[in-house]
Amino acid sequence: MAHLVPLADPRDSRVADFVHLRDVQLRKSLEAEHGLFIAEGEKVIRRAVETGHPVRSFLMARRWISALSDVLDRVDAPVYVVDDATAEAVTGYPVHRGALAAMDRLPLPPVRDLVTHARRVLVLEDLVDHGNVGAIFRCAAALGVRAVILSPRCADPLYRRSVKVSMGAVFAVPYARMTDWHGGLAELRDAGFRLLALTPDQSAVPIDKAPMGDRVALMLGSEGDGLSSRWLRAADEAVCIPMSSDAMELGVDSLNVVAAAAIACHSLTR
Amino acid sequence: MAHLVPLADPRDSRVADFVHLRDVQLRKSLEAEHGLFIAEGEKVIRRAVETGHPVRSFLMARRWISALSDVLDRVDAPVYVVDDATAEAVTGYPVHRGALAAMDRLPLPPVRDLVTHARRVLVLEDLVDHGNVGAIFRCAAALGVRAVILSPRCADPLYRRSVKVSMGAVFAVPYARMTDWHGGLAELRDAGFRLLALTPDQSAVPIDKAPMGDRVALMLGSEGDGLSSRWLRAADEAVCIPMSSDAMELGVDSLNVVAAAAIACHSLTR
Repeated sequence: MAHLVPLADPRDSRVADFVHLRDVQLRKSLEAEHGLFIAEGEKVIRRAVETGHPVRSFLMARRWISALSDVLDRVDAPVYVVDDATAEAVTGYPVHRGALAAMDRLPLPPVRDLVTHARRVLVLEDLVDHGNVGAIFRCAAALGVRAVILSPRCADPLYRRSVKVSMGAVFAVPYARMTDWHGGLAELRDAGFRLLALTPDQSAVPIDKAPMGDRVALMLGSEGDGLSSRWLRAADEAVCIPMSSDAMELGVDSLNVVAAAAIACHSLTR
Repeated sequence: MAHLVPLADPRDSRVADFVHLRDVQLRKSLEAEHGLFIAEGEKVIRRAVETGHPVRSFLMARRWISALSDVLDRVDAPVYVVDDATAEAVTGYPVHRGALAAMDRLPLPPVRDLVTHARRVLVLEDLVDHGNVGAIFRCAAALGVRAVILSPRCADPLYRRSVKVSMGAVFAVPYARMTDWHGGLAELRDAGFRLLALTPDQSAVPIDKAPMGDRVALMLGSEGDGLSSRWLRAADEAVCIPMSSDAMELGVDSLNVVAAAAIACHSLTR
């Protein structure tokens, strides 16, 4: 059972897991070093606990305790109970969405193990925006894609904003991170996946018309530049989402990556 | 031709159009009162000027002038040239994305005129998030939906964040705002549109299987609650995006509205 610990000093070292939550660079190194991540809000904390993530500690105002009481009953961790001013002084922003929890990350599976039973896989190359990564996990969960593979430099699905935007889907859809950008795709092909590269290039095969086969891995590139030329060349086929013929005249030359991922997941699992 | 005006005092009344850009409530009333909006960044400013929006004034650091020189040559408006500290003191945030322009809004057409020639229309009911509104306009522009109708309370497509996320698509896709939430849909039906209500309810007709006919208006509801029951009842047919059968077990009960809009636009224009 969690135990309540009233806390007033924002510099107290016991809440060091929660400091400067808006400082992306600081959080990246702090979370990597300690193998932790932050879950925010009742629903997300609940999902993270249900999926087996150990809680290091909670930080919340007193008014959030009752909504989480069933979770607190099951978890052995301190609950630092703070007022709103202390919460803001620790985290660096007004904590509107309720409780925070610092949790331990679980070890990620190797890519090979992750895809053993998957038929539809997304492969994300170097996405930089945490919100986009989270939104894509939500699409995958909703539409039936049951594995995501991240390039070595792709943004972290367990970063606070990713988790929040995903509505907890980052805990539901298993994922792995490639250790080798050069050779990572070969491993997927060896496992029997047909590699489709999603590109805005309208001379590619429309995704609704691409032959899918039993196992398909769909590659999505980064927000600005799309897929690297190396990964485009490594694909079995380039596919596109057909755009309106006058879109270019209207100054719109692509969909954003989340919209593209949504349409792609819908097509992959049709 | 625009004329350069060096400016150092952030309280100077000549830059009153640009104050407190992160204060949503203040900006809403200020922009409504003066009939203005803010365009941010070279690409967006360029699109806004090309689509006939009169420039009231520019605010920018000296280093952005040359990139916009062709626009400045054609426009008769003051360019307030500021250093970064002054820009931040005026706007309330560090202006990373380059130039800002304050522009006059153009009168919106009546719904009836907007849809005269449209075959595919989106109808947005009470969306609250400006980023979502902008992202949906980008989907519409890319995928061939050429008219958007807003409910009376739907978030403003010309709010700074909407414009930015849309990548300028809010200037490309014509839109109108209903004045009458109760009777607004009847006007569309009278114009020959079949009204489809998009719902997460999986007992509705899958959108890819819904008969489309010549003229279709697809209704999208707000982020939290979806479509109002009144609008759901007023629809000719409720349609859904089929979700994976295990999505609910995974704790994901819906797509976000932008992902849903992307798939819907793709289906509407297939």
